[in-house]
Amino acid sequence: MADLKVTVPENSQNILGTVTINAPLAKVFNAYTQADLFAKWWCRGNPMKVYHFDCKDGGSWHIAEQAEDGNEYQFTGCFHEVAHNRRIVQTFEFLGMPERGHVMLEKAEFIAIDEHTTEIHTHSTAMSQADRDGMVASGMESGWRQSVEVLGQLLESRN
Amino acid sequence: MADLKVTVPENSQNILGTVTINAPLAKVFNAYTQADLFAKWWCRGNPMKVYHFDCKDGGSWHIAEQAEDGNEYQFTGCFHEVAHNRRIVQTFEFLGMPERGHVMLEKAEFIAIDEHTTEIHTHSTAMSQADRDGMVASGMESGWRQSVEVLGQLLESRN
Repeated sequence: MADLKVTVPENSQNILGTVTINAPLAKVFNAYTQADLFAKWWCRGNPMKVYHFDCKDGGSWHIAEQAEDGNEYQFTGCFHEVAHNRRIVQTFEFLGMPERGHVMLEKAEFIAIDEHTTEIHTHSTAMSQADRDGMVASGMESGWRQSVEVLGQLLESRN
Repeated sequence: MADLKVTVPENSQNILGTVTINAPLAKVFNAYTQADLFAKWWCRGNPMKVYHFDCKDGGSWHIAEQAEDGNEYQFTGCFHEVAHNRRIVQTFEFLGMPERGHVMLEKAEFIAIDEHTTEIHTHSTAMSQADRDGMVASGMESGWRQSVEVLGQLLESRN
């Protein structure tokens, strides 16, 4: 089981999330840092291609998701900080925008609630409130919820 | 000669800057992307140490400035996008904070005004307005102005 709560504060460029996963912290962190595992849940179980994914301080990533409409949607970012079992700070950009440069900064903090339950507190910041609101209007929350559900199933099947 | 205009919009997490440099765009861009040149002006001519500086898509950097008080101030980030002679998008963190995680996202766009004059439009975003305001209160603008002056002198001496 997995749960997601999203908050979109007024007069802010941020999107805040709390993800609750019924799995131990080390397994959840591993699912964020291992390329194949990460791409599987992040792409909601859809076909995907990992161009590269080097989850370490100063590494970077580039993943494509094959959508049901036949199109490939590409995403890229760099890893600012990867603190083992604690925190990941990275950038995020959807490469399908009319122009590049609409980048998000994302921080995920991993917290063990008990030995079977992990919370991830996410803090995403857009470069403007318009970018943030566009992200929300694009259906981000429902896509994110699908990702979190696949993550929950994946970790449950590996317990 | 070099000039800097800084704007700190209300109800925003951003700091906007316009840097004007009397040097051709290619030379200005080069001063942002070559480690030794970059560290020289960015550290305002002070002694510094470049731990690493790999200015390319998905690269990262880590620089220390030796201050007059004898302390070493360290900064790190990753390069999200380096578009030759056009744009650099990167992260930035001062490693002297009580805790890590107060990261900025920075976009610099390079514009040739004429063949001897370049403008750099910078757009820096903090993860909260409090972080942004703290950055402004820390004397960021006067430090930045010193950096820009050293950059101007450096490029003038190389014309």
